Amino acid sequence: MDLHNPKSGVCLPISDLPRVVVIGAGFGGINFIKKIRNKPVQIILIDKNNFHQFQPLLYQVAIAGLEPDSIVTPIRKLFHGYNNFNFRMAEVIEIDHSNNKVITNIGWVQYDYLVIATGSVSNYYGLDNIEHSSVGLKDIRDSLDIRSWVLQNLEKAVITCDDIEKDALTNFVIVGGGPAGVELAGALAEFKKYLLHKDYPELAKDWMRIYLIEAADRLLNVMSPKSSNHALKVLQKLDVTILLNTAVKDYDGHTVLLADSETLKARSLIWTAGVKGYFPKGIPDNIVVRGSRLKVDEYNKVQGLDNVYAIGDVAAQVSEDLPRGHPLLAPVAIQQGDQLGENIMSLIKDGKYKKPFIYKDKGSMATIGKNSAVVEVGKKQLSGWLAWVMWSTVHLFSITGFKNRLIVGVNWMIRYINYEKANRLIIRPFEPDENVLEKQDNLKRKAMDNSALVAKSC
Amino acid sequence: MDLHNPKSGVCLPISDLPRVVVIGAGFGGINFIKKIRNKPVQIILIDKNNFHQFQPLLYQVAIAGLEPDSIVTPIRKLFHGYNNFNFRMAEVIEIDHSNNKVITNIGWVQYDYLVIATGSVSNYYGLDNIEHSSVGLKDIRDSLDIRSWVLQNLEKAVITCDDIEKDALTNFVIVGGGPAGVELAGALAEFKKYLLHKDYPELAKDWMRIYLIEAADRLLNVMSPKSSNHALKVLQKLDVTILLNTAVKDYDGHTVLLADSETLKARSLIWTAGVKGYFPKGIPDNIVVRGSRLKVDEYNKVQGLDNVYAIGDVAAQVSEDLPRGHPLLAPVAIQQGDQLGENIMSLIKDGKYKKPFIYKDKGSMATIGKNSAVVEVGKKQLSGWLAWVMWSTVHLFSITGFKNRLIVGVNWMIRYINYEKANRLIIRPFEPDENVLEKQDNLKRKAMDNSALVAKSC
Repeated sequence: MDLHNPKSGVCLPISDLPRVVVIGAGFGGINFIKKIRNKPVQIILIDKNNFHQFQPLLYQVAIAGLEPDSIVTPIRKLFHGYNNFNFRMAEVIEIDHSNNKVITNIGWVQYDYLVIATGSVSNYYGLDNIEHSSVGLKDIRDSLDIRSWVLQNLEKAVITCDDIEKDALTNFVIVGGGPAGVELAGALAEFKKYLLHKDYPELAKDWMRIYLIEAADRLLNVMSPKSSNHALKVLQKLDVTILLNTAVKDYDGHTVLLADSETLKARSLIWTAGVKGYFPKGIPDNIVVRGSRLKVDEYNKVQGLDNVYAIGDVAAQVSEDLPRGHPLLAPVAIQQGDQLGENIMSLIKDGKYKKPFIYKDKGSMATIGKNSAVVEVGKKQLSGWLAWVMWSTVHLFSITGFKNRLIVGVNWMIRYINYEKANRLIIRPFEPDENVLEKQDNLKRKAMDNSALVAKSC
Repeated sequence: MDLHNPKSGVCLPISDLPRVVVIGAGFGGINFIKKIRNKPVQIILIDKNNFHQFQPLLYQVAIAGLEPDSIVTPIRKLFHGYNNFNFRMAEVIEIDHSNNKVITNIGWVQYDYLVIATGSVSNYYGLDNIEHSSVGLKDIRDSLDIRSWVLQNLEKAVITCDDIEKDALTNFVIVGGGPAGVELAGALAEFKKYLLHKDYPELAKDWMRIYLIEAADRLLNVMSPKSSNHALKVLQKLDVTILLNTAVKDYDGHTVLLADSETLKARSLIWTAGVKGYFPKGIPDNIVVRGSRLKVDEYNKVQGLDNVYAIGDVAAQVSEDLPRGHPLLAPVAIQQGDQLGENIMSLIKDGKYKKPFIYKDKGSMATIGKNSAVVEVGKKQLSGWLAWVMWSTVHLFSITGFKNRLIVGVNWMIRYINYEKANRLIIRPFEPDENVLEKQDNLKRKAMDNSALVAKSC
């Protein structure tokens, strides 16, 4: 295999086949690639991580005792045995669409077809202080940081004689009452209920307070009022303090400022109040629509650009029925990846797409604690223990990798029997502040930059 | 419970019972505490981590697909239900033995009895460059850093067209042919044999070279020549390049300088060539013996200090039979912890120790790859598959925590059946250099320092 390829700055195998470059190994990206496995194209997948992460269970790593490794899968393992697949671990800096190139920190890559599947990131709506002082829940490192943060604060609370500070350390604020916030709040509340007194006998249980703050008038705003009510009841029974119709204006690491000018002392804040699309530089502004997403047509082609497609959270298939595009959900990304795979191959082979993308809504679900959930399919709504069984089954079988499913299954069984979660570990201490964030970014950039130095000789 | 205690700077429960302060939650510390469970003493355990780690399996996290969480146990969980136990997550800065105080970064703690169980750290024998450019294998973070480092270098190798650099990136050097080095080399070699071509089809297998460098004339120097030979054969069959009678003089991140002035290009070096005792400041120099260990008598009392004891790697029970003290092994630490627990209680109750410590050598073992090991008990030696079964059984049942044993057991079964290890993950990229090390230390110190600010009001 000759790895010197005049077509790209990055070393890649020479091939006469059309080259499909995919940016992002989330649900959209990997399902797209699965669809075109061993088809007559050369696939180049670029992602800054070397793994795919199962985002729906991030909250369980953050609180509930799932091993982080069990919800991530190495990309190279995922695509074992593909004869047309290449992976490059890199960060895409810019899309040079006029020249059909993707510029990365390890060199540039030419494409015949480009699929942008870069997903979404937390949306702080311009509230910079909050962004620097809090953690989101979009990435496995967020989960690990939350895990460390909660435990560090409890350890500090144990040695604090100052009641005001102790109160702040034991207040845990979650902003955003969507599925992520509800699931996190439920898990944290269960930790308080079943484990706090065992782990921290010196800390009276009443100290720990969990706040779930939602700007709208109900939790799980995207689901039915019946589901919202169920979630509210379960969480209140678990002693979560729920503030509805409440927006958060500011947070500086110790004081939460609410829109009505009320304040709340808290040494930790987790932001699940919004997401927005994420994509590299180089996309013309007129293509970007609300929510920082790229406008695509019914074949997921990015409007106005040749041979550039977008799927998943970053794509907005705007239409009369869907003025804001599809919801930012995993099943949408999965189905779009699938359909686009079929369409791209049809385009290459026959010069036309197979069919437009139509989302098959298989319902939505959210879990609230150890054995309660809400599930909605069409007009049918289910809540409670049976919903939780359905939720668990669907999620278990969606996780990639047999060993991961086994580990997660074992974890859930143990947790169900005796709630014992043994992952209350601070492996890398966490402290959010601008300097730290900057340092972490620099560390990451430095690690990747060295490989850019290496690639220059190509 | 009144947490204002005039006896200590750190908030602790008031108690009339004698206070036993333990520094370090390794094998020695936790077994000592288990022995004095619910006895009439107040136990204060101080450790900079909130977990105990099972060091013998660190290499499996580094290479062989064990989840990091499965070999660490939260300290607070370990001691659930103890009515006399208190944990404080802190770093001990100094021992003020004249005043019976331990100074930590969160305040000082008075003791009636002090047990130093701080273990050991990598010994670089003054070779500072090596210390800054390599990773040891003494801590779970070392394991994760090795895991990231190996994979990062392979990703860089994939995009390198410069053969010299590619060679350096795919040379993995392990210095130290004791059990840790042998086990690591074996695991890395198996990764090369079974997984490299699957994960990195674009990288010809021959690129990856594993070097195991040992200064003595045989591997596993502490075991019998028969075991050494078996390890050598297995590793050579796995294509490990073994350099005996070879010392490493220097390493700067790309060139290994050997004692005979030969050089070796390598972008990673793992140091398992020596350990030394670790203890906080404040110990008089005349108590410190070879290997940076504290001289103790047959009751593990530190000579020359009142009421101060030391167990495990940091303690050297020097005698005619043992001019260097006991070997630095887990079973020694475990047994010393056990015996000291009995002795301390006897001293408190009856004014005298129960009996001196005598080490019951239950043998030693090391594993070399998926299903080969060496085991020695007394004069009996066993090698091969049966030894590996014994090794696995002993280690599995020594791990703390039922869920951890289950997870590790499941991992081993899967690995045995199809060698598939799905933990080839770079979750936190790693780059060793002085600045980075300093930054990491600062991050950690900062996280802990904030709690020192908090404790000042006591």
